[in-house]
Amino acid sequence: MTFTPKDPEYAARVRTSFAAQRVMATIGAALTHVGPGEVDITLPFREDLTQQDGFLHAGMLATVADSACGYAAYTLMPATANVLSIEFKINMLAPAVGASVTARARVVRAGRTITVCHADVFALRDGPEKLVASMVGTMMTVP
Amino acid sequence: MTFTPKDPEYAARVRTSFAAQRVMATIGAALTHVGPGEVDITLPFREDLTQQDGFLHAGMLATVADSACGYAAYTLMPATANVLSIEFKINMLAPAVGASVTARARVVRAGRTITVCHADVFALRDGPEKLVASMVGTMMTVP
Amino acid sequence: MTFTPKDPEYAARVRTSFAAQRVMATIGAALTHVGPGEVDITLPFREDLTQQDGFLHAGMLATVADSACGYAAYTLMPATANVLSIEFKINMLAPAVGASVTARARVVRAGRTITVCHADVFALRDGPEKLVASMVGTMMTVP
Amino acid sequence: MTFTPKDPEYAARVRTSFAAQRVMATIGAALTHVGPGEVDITLPFREDLTQQDGFLHAGMLATVADSACGYAAYTLMPATANVLSIEFKINMLAPAVGASVTARARVVRAGRTITVCHADVFALRDGPEKLVASMVGTMMTVP
Repeated sequence: MTFTPKDPEYAARVRTSFAAQRVMATIGAALTHVGPGEVDITLPFREDLTQQDGFLHAGMLATVADSACGYAAYTLMPATANVLSIEFKINMLAPAVGASVTARARVVRAGRTITVCHADVFALRDGPEKLVASMVGTMMTVP
Repeated sequence: MTFTPKDPEYAARVRTSFAAQRVMATIGAALTHVGPGEVDITLPFREDLTQQDGFLHAGMLATVADSACGYAAYTLMPATANVLSIEFKINMLAPAVGASVTARARVVRAGRTITVCHADVFALRDGPEKLVASMVGTMMTVP
Repeated sequence: MTFTPKDPEYAARVRTSFAAQRVMATIGAALTHVGPGEVDITLPFREDLTQQDGFLHAGMLATVADSACGYAAYTLMPATANVLSIEFKINMLAPAVGASVTARARVVRAGRTITVCHADVFALRDGPEKLVASMVGTMMTVP
Repeated sequence: MTFTPKDPEYAARVRTSFAAQRVMATIGAALTHVGPGEVDITLPFREDLTQQDGFLHAGMLATVADSACGYAAYTLMPATANVLSIEFKINMLAPAVGASVTARARVVRAGRTITVCHADVFALRDGPEKLVASMVGTMMTVP
């Protein structure tokens, strides 16, 4: 699917808002791709973000995937709008181990009020990426 | 609903596992209630856990609600079992502001393999608690 | 939670719209309770609505629970608004057998644009009701 | 993603089970594709399956998408296993109008106990297919 942003400055708008999400700096997440209806966020593995078995906690995957979905939706919104995360669902598919995980969010449908996004979360180690989680999120445009 | 734990030492088992979730110490979350099919986790507000508007990030609510659901399920499992979070869905109902939030997870149905939990996340400020998010999670018993 | 409907004629409005949902007559579902933020829909068991094991198909439970959620939200909307089902999630908790099932939907939070509802689906046979499914749905007010 | 079925007779097994889902005949749904990890189900439009605005009811989309997910998972299961639908979430993306809708389910991850599927529901009228709903479902292998 290809989208045409309403605001040509959409990428700068996403970067500014991401920089204001203080939790991203706290956990060490970085914005690694911004395109029309597309945002990737990468989280390097850190032992102080793990659950009891030494894997990244599902909540950390949810944190980067939710922000990626919100910002993917935000790329297509008017310059003056805000984005709100109404709800999301995430399935954990494999243990999140490796050097880092990347959440790749893509807009599935952009409506006037509601935007729906999918985000796949991949773990990177040696060899090919591995899908470790899959999110669907519903985002709202606040005019 | 009332449940009878299979393992009388269930609370100690939950506390030990919670202490091994290093992310809980990182974000400052504490286990504040453990009962049969019931777990509460409290997260004091911290500015370095916020999104762009200064509210707690939805991912932080998901992190404590997911652990609360997992451990609520874990209270009813055999002593030798492990718990796995298969999937969860969370609706954000109001901005998460206040001195702290508490996720209260309760088992809705405990099966041999699958346990389903609800968690409500409340924000505490002055006055009464306010419901800010609602989760449904599906947990698996790993024998 | 108690709600005060904006439209005193809310129950008549729900009944009229329900009567226009032709699928409800097709499957034999009936509106069995309407209150502020509350709607129940009952579906008598029919063998031609079953899946391969002779239980009511999960889609039938979803059909009545989704309508119950939509109409529970609708009871709180202005007289001229329409209701739209944005998304729902349903967990199947036990096989849906018995003489009938009833979906009991309750509004959890009613916002200006977004209303979130929970619906529990109970099966009735001899003896007490049994919880067979649990839905969370997100409904939108279309002005 | 490509999958190798454990049971070479997987397609016959799916067709037999589908034929036993009596609700499929009741609503007029047909199995239109079976492959390894892939099942499509088509539902021709019928006025007696509609909601109050004359569109197919969301529950009808959920019914065919849930069966498609269950059978997509079932194609990869051992010959003696049964499939159980644990939970699903569906987002409604556009009104379901047209001559028919087709749910296309694909396995995202097949585990020993848990299989996760995505299903997109497309409406067919004149011109290209239109995406009207998107489901994620969690299926269980019952040995």
